[in-house]
Amino acid sequence: MTDWQSEIEAAAARIAGHVRVTPVARLTLGGFDVEIKLEQMQHTGSFKARGAFNTLLSGSVPPGGVVAASGGNHGAAVGHAAAALGHAAHIFVPEIAGPAKIALIERTGATCHVVPGVYADALEAAQDHEARTGAMQVHAYDAVQTLAGQGTCLREWEAQGLEAETVLIAVGGGGLIGGSLAWLAGRRKVVAVEPRLAPTLHTALQGGRPVDVEVAGVAANALGARRIGELAFGLAQGIESVLVEDEAILAARDLLWREARLLVEPAGSAALAALISGACRPDPGERVAVLICGANPAPDPLD
Amino acid sequence: MTDWQSEIEAAAARIAGHVRVTPVARLTLGGFDVEIKLEQMQHTGSFKARGAFNTLLSGSVPPGGVVAASGGNHGAAVGHAAAALGHAAHIFVPEIAGPAKIALIERTGATCHVVPGVYADALEAAQDHEARTGAMQVHAYDAVQTLAGQGTCLREWEAQGLEAETVLIAVGGGGLIGGSLAWLAGRRKVVAVEPRLAPTLHTALQGGRPVDVEVAGVAANALGARRIGELAFGLAQGIESVLVEDEAILAARDLLWREARLLVEPAGSAALAALISGACRPDPGERVAVLICGANPAPDPLD
Repeated sequence: MTDWQSEIEAAAARIAGHVRVTPVARLTLGGFDVEIKLEQMQHTGSFKARGAFNTLLSGSVPPGGVVAASGGNHGAAVGHAAAALGHAAHIFVPEIAGPAKIALIERTGATCHVVPGVYADALEAAQDHEARTGAMQVHAYDAVQTLAGQGTCLREWEAQGLEAETVLIAVGGGGLIGGSLAWLAGRRKVVAVEPRLAPTLHTALQGGRPVDVEVAGVAANALGARRIGELAFGLAQGIESVLVEDEAILAARDLLWREARLLVEPAGSAALAALISGACRPDPGERVAVLICGANPAPDPLD
Repeated sequence: MTDWQSEIEAAAARIAGHVRVTPVARLTLGGFDVEIKLEQMQHTGSFKARGAFNTLLSGSVPPGGVVAASGGNHGAAVGHAAAALGHAAHIFVPEIAGPAKIALIERTGATCHVVPGVYADALEAAQDHEARTGAMQVHAYDAVQTLAGQGTCLREWEAQGLEAETVLIAVGGGGLIGGSLAWLAGRRKVVAVEPRLAPTLHTALQGGRPVDVEVAGVAANALGARRIGELAFGLAQGIESVLVEDEAILAARDLLWREARLLVEPAGSAALAALISGACRPDPGERVAVLICGANPAPDPLD
């Protein structure tokens, strides 16, 4: 059984200096007092840099470099980490990634391959590339080193004085929430938030096992893994899982910009959407924290 | 002579709870290690809420409410503070404020009057309104309560652990830099940064007195006061004053978005532009901080 505390402590030591300590704040948003962590200020605009650096620094990267499949954010993070560490990177993305995220990946110096179809097709192409070239595969969410890297985010937040009893976290494939649950080990309540149109964890928790689901909607390229990762599924047993409508995700995105000048992508506002829309209703006096996890919107406001 | 330490301490006590404690961060931007304060996350997207709340809470607001002239950000802050405290607000803006800032002011509930001409014309119209109605005039920069309010920003940053010996601050009419200098009282070096096309303080320091200057360029609606305030001019004697090109301001704006997912307006990136462009060259080992002061860009990315 994985000793998560040790894995995450080791990851934090490994990636220190390569990733940013992202700022935290307390503010009132839509009438709710919340603590937030601005993890969207991480390199390449999402938490994904943590897992990417941890993976690359945990093993020996072969001459063929690294390969990853991604809806966009993971690919940009792997491209950035590879460039920072002097490795070549090939990133396979489905068309759904969109021009803004493809441009983001290309700016890291990685070679970006756009694959017809969905994330699963991009993953298959990345696995073909791995088999042909011997490149190191960096999984987007279902690997110990990925989860351990993402887990450093909550470790960092606690060191910064996180007070809330409850933390709302958006879920795609489960890397961020898995790492967070692994670090917290039950010390705080975690609420999993997913778009109703991409209910990967929710469906798995209801059915008792990970299954493929249809994914769509405004956050699909970031939260649209078709099946929750096995690691995250194991860690998420018994947690509260809520679904939010696309309209609520966009309303929360608008609110973050209007009230706090934080411009995020829909995946980055999904956790807040659960609070604003009432999908998650804290008890009186329950202090709540919201992890802002990504800010690679389409279109890019400066393109 | 004004006892600035007392004024700023009193301002901080007065506005606590009405303004946000804005987060701080350390990061590398364009190859420079800097401390930054995300004051653009303040209510209505700029530091101006500090001075506005301090002014309204320092006196007795008459039945006619409040009136202000503004290039946009001050007006939005006064509108917000007035609404929060239950007063009517009339804001006079020059056409240069632009649709995004006019919409921002109107969203606060204030009545926004667009005046043909430049800031000076809007100020004249605001003074006419004051004379006719008895409304309280909230000056954008050249008043003790305004400066004392803006001075709480550096007070807060020091309480958050600011380490840099040198702080770069953008200058328009001088409210923010005046309040900062008043608070710091020589404890740290302050570098004044202005667009070359709006060199209000720079021209005054060179000539030995405030004079009217022509103002233009990408940051004109926020940094385009035609004449530096008398209070700020008095406080700024002997400080380093640098000018930056519009191209450098836009490059710094792009950098803040690309590297840290902070979307700001040109005035908000002007201080960073001085560092990136080499207009300000820190000594080896000199630690530098950059105050990010505003994020009301045009066009608004979500309009």
